[in-house]
Amino acid sequence: MENIWTNLTKVFSASLLLIVFTTLSLRLSAQPSERQTDAAFIRKIYDQALTDGRCYPWLRDLCLGVGHRLSGSPGAEKAVKWTQSMLDTVGLDSVWLQPVMVPHWVRGSAEQVRATGSKKYGSFNINALALGGSVGTNGKAVSAEVVEVKTWEELDALNERGIRGKIVFYNRPMDPAKIRTFEAYGGAVDQRSSGASRAAKYGAVGVLVRSMNLRLDDFPHTGALRYDSTYTLIPAVAISTNDAEKLSALLHAEGKATVSMQLNCQTFPDVLSYNVIGEIRGTEKPDEIIVVGGHLDSWDVGHGAHDDGAGCTQSMDVLRHLLRLGYRPRHTIRCVLFMNEENGLRGGREYAREAERKGEYHLCAIESDAGGFTPRGFSFDGDDAVIGKFFEKVSEHRDLFEPYGLTLTRGGGGADIGPLKGQKGLLSGYSPDSQRYFDYHHAATDVFDAVNKRELELGAASMTALVFLLDKYGL
Amino acid sequence: MENIWTNLTKVFSASLLLIVFTTLSLRLSAQPSERQTDAAFIRKIYDQALTDGRCYPWLRDLCLGVGHRLSGSPGAEKAVKWTQSMLDTVGLDSVWLQPVMVPHWVRGSAEQVRATGSKKYGSFNINALALGGSVGTNGKAVSAEVVEVKTWEELDALNERGIRGKIVFYNRPMDPAKIRTFEAYGGAVDQRSSGASRAAKYGAVGVLVRSMNLRLDDFPHTGALRYDSTYTLIPAVAISTNDAEKLSALLHAEGKATVSMQLNCQTFPDVLSYNVIGEIRGTEKPDEIIVVGGHLDSWDVGHGAHDDGAGCTQSMDVLRHLLRLGYRPRHTIRCVLFMNEENGLRGGREYAREAERKGEYHLCAIESDAGGFTPRGFSFDGDDAVIGKFFEKVSEHRDLFEPYGLTLTRGGGGADIGPLKGQKGLLSGYSPDSQRYFDYHHAATDVFDAVNKRELELGAASMTALVFLLDKYGL
Repeated sequence: MENIWTNLTKVFSASLLLIVFTTLSLRLSAQPSERQTDAAFIRKIYDQALTDGRCYPWLRDLCLGVGHRLSGSPGAEKAVKWTQSMLDTVGLDSVWLQPVMVPHWVRGSAEQVRATGSKKYGSFNINALALGGSVGTNGKAVSAEVVEVKTWEELDALNERGIRGKIVFYNRPMDPAKIRTFEAYGGAVDQRSSGASRAAKYGAVGVLVRSMNLRLDDFPHTGALRYDSTYTLIPAVAISTNDAEKLSALLHAEGKATVSMQLNCQTFPDVLSYNVIGEIRGTEKPDEIIVVGGHLDSWDVGHGAHDDGAGCTQSMDVLRHLLRLGYRPRHTIRCVLFMNEENGLRGGREYAREAERKGEYHLCAIESDAGGFTPRGFSFDGDDAVIGKFFEKVSEHRDLFEPYGLTLTRGGGGADIGPLKGQKGLLSGYSPDSQRYFDYHHAATDVFDAVNKRELELGAASMTALVFLLDKYGL
Repeated sequence: MENIWTNLTKVFSASLLLIVFTTLSLRLSAQPSERQTDAAFIRKIYDQALTDGRCYPWLRDLCLGVGHRLSGSPGAEKAVKWTQSMLDTVGLDSVWLQPVMVPHWVRGSAEQVRATGSKKYGSFNINALALGGSVGTNGKAVSAEVVEVKTWEELDALNERGIRGKIVFYNRPMDPAKIRTFEAYGGAVDQRSSGASRAAKYGAVGVLVRSMNLRLDDFPHTGALRYDSTYTLIPAVAISTNDAEKLSALLHAEGKATVSMQLNCQTFPDVLSYNVIGEIRGTEKPDEIIVVGGHLDSWDVGHGAHDDGAGCTQSMDVLRHLLRLGYRPRHTIRCVLFMNEENGLRGGREYAREAERKGEYHLCAIESDAGGFTPRGFSFDGDDAVIGKFFEKVSEHRDLFEPYGLTLTRGGGGADIGPLKGQKGLLSGYSPDSQRYFDYHHAATDVFDAVNKRELELGAASMTALVFLLDKYGL
């Protein structure tokens, strides 16, 4: 038997517990409800993107209607007009062109690169593309013995004695063991960007560079070189990985190889081009801008589908998705299609300069320039304090990204948005899966058919989700 | 100024702190060192897989040398021999064939499916493939009016009055809004597997099924049907998504459509075939087995590259990687290439039956049958108690998988390993990215060139890493 006190105590304890639980559950239910609202809206974004996306038909138009679009080319001019006219259909608050002077390099008729005098193979053509910015060979072929190197140490050891009058063949492959292929690219691309001048320093007359490609195939991959004007400007080409293997085998077997190269490229004076910009004006903080973008220019082979037609059409679709879902952003959301990322970065620099002039503050800039592949996440860059604070905050949102296979990491933003770093906002790079990117990068293989519709759309959805959360919660 | 006590206290506190820190750091350094060993070995596995893998050249052989290999076909027989001879080169402790009787269905000459009498289109061919197991049409065409349904409710509402003497056209698409495409497949495949008998119940004379494909294209995707022998066995084909759209539009515009279908398929008596098995005998617990496998049979179109040449050659490479790295497993590691997953599951059932007969215990079985795409993780299935314990334990290893973009979740194992569930070990499905899988699944598009070398190799590495951790730590 229990006395009344015990019972009273029990009742009291129970009441206390009830109060505690009620308070707790009120707090708990308030907490999930906001998350649930966010989760539901993000789910709507993906539904919208996967059932009513425009990025894929836009990409088809850009690839098959406009085609490739190197800065300064008629293709680039056409791309600017096409992009503006497409943005005009979206219902944005404004769409405009931002003038920018860009380099004007022209490949000319196809390069002729040929190995001659091999005992085993006789003479054979080498699949090659002049590197962007390379000088031509003045209507005649440069012919010389080839010397192969894989490292700068090997180059320096050969020195003038081993190099003068020869063609240097850079044959360091991208490291296949890197899980992130951009790291493998980082470990090999110095050959392409500075190989010409570093060989010219020792008197080389030309340069062959193994393509930045993890596959063995017949497609040369072009890309920009940077001359050091201290030395003679010598012609430089990328050759296919299969041809690099063959040439290397020939050099090892026969001890000697001769290559002739004729390049018909030329650099003309800078020409006027444009960044294409569209925006939805913010309702509460119109002066704080969230940018989402890619680069409109491409190399002059293939369609520039993954690089970076994908990023452009995804960025355009981000704004369209927000409008279609009836979302009115607090901040100004701006889509920027940058000109001249590939060989000058003039568009990115001009955009940042203009922002500085107008006193525009960029809360965040997101760039999609890693292909239209399946989403893996976003990397974030910026001022230490900003990024520290952001990562504290973002942990609250991390589970909102999980159903879509997205992880948020520190890392690079993107080339075009790099010049905004001084504003101390956040820079973010959209990171799709990187395994197949270098199968296509800067090569004739980068065509519309290499892009999967769903993967492209999921990227646009992921970018929209990030923009939504940044707009709602700020930094 | 500070007195001696203060100083003494300080020294004492400092000493205490030092002891605490030393103890703590000793524990911390002991902890990471084992992790570091594991992490380093896993890194070696990936290095090995990405620089010295065999799965890709094996897959080339299997696709281009053997070709497709439906159960009971000459291709399947050739595949068994090829697989055995390849496993013989790996240096395993034993390689053997496990006999199993399999169904023998033959497509015969190409099916003729044609819409006739449309006002807009006149007559036109429909890209079609008989469903696996379908009856033929006895050398003549079945011609009838078409009635379209998207749900079972629609079918049941039409009833005998609306269906008798007609061809039922199942046109419910896979849901593009599902993030995981296998969910979208699960929401549509009932039309293919049970549509024929459910239509026959109401007197239908044939069935057209929209292909299980998220893209709009011209390729029909076949797959197994299951007849309910209560009803007449009627012929059934998969038609391409483009043709499904066209036929549906025609039905809506003209109110009526007629289709004729001639199928030349036949079912013959069961024939003898084999599971192909190889193993490395465990040093400590040889009677506890870890299986890694895929299925050797395919449909009779394309190369069966993603489905499931990829899973087979990855599984074979798992054992090879362990040997090449000098790893001697504690448990027996067995690679099983199952026969007849596609239209009978006889191989999987026979394997489990034989294991039961011999009293073999399977600690874990891992199946790779979701394509050779970029790795996303593993799903785990099994007895509630086992899987609960496993997930408690696995949280310790989770960070070892992170650098490779792998997440571990609960979910399905795989069809072939399903019959092992009774053993109360762990079942695991390797989960590559699913976005592109249904572009290829059971269609002529599933060819060697659709598989990316790195993505395939990364899958083999991921499976090897999981086998290594399971072997080292058990369940």
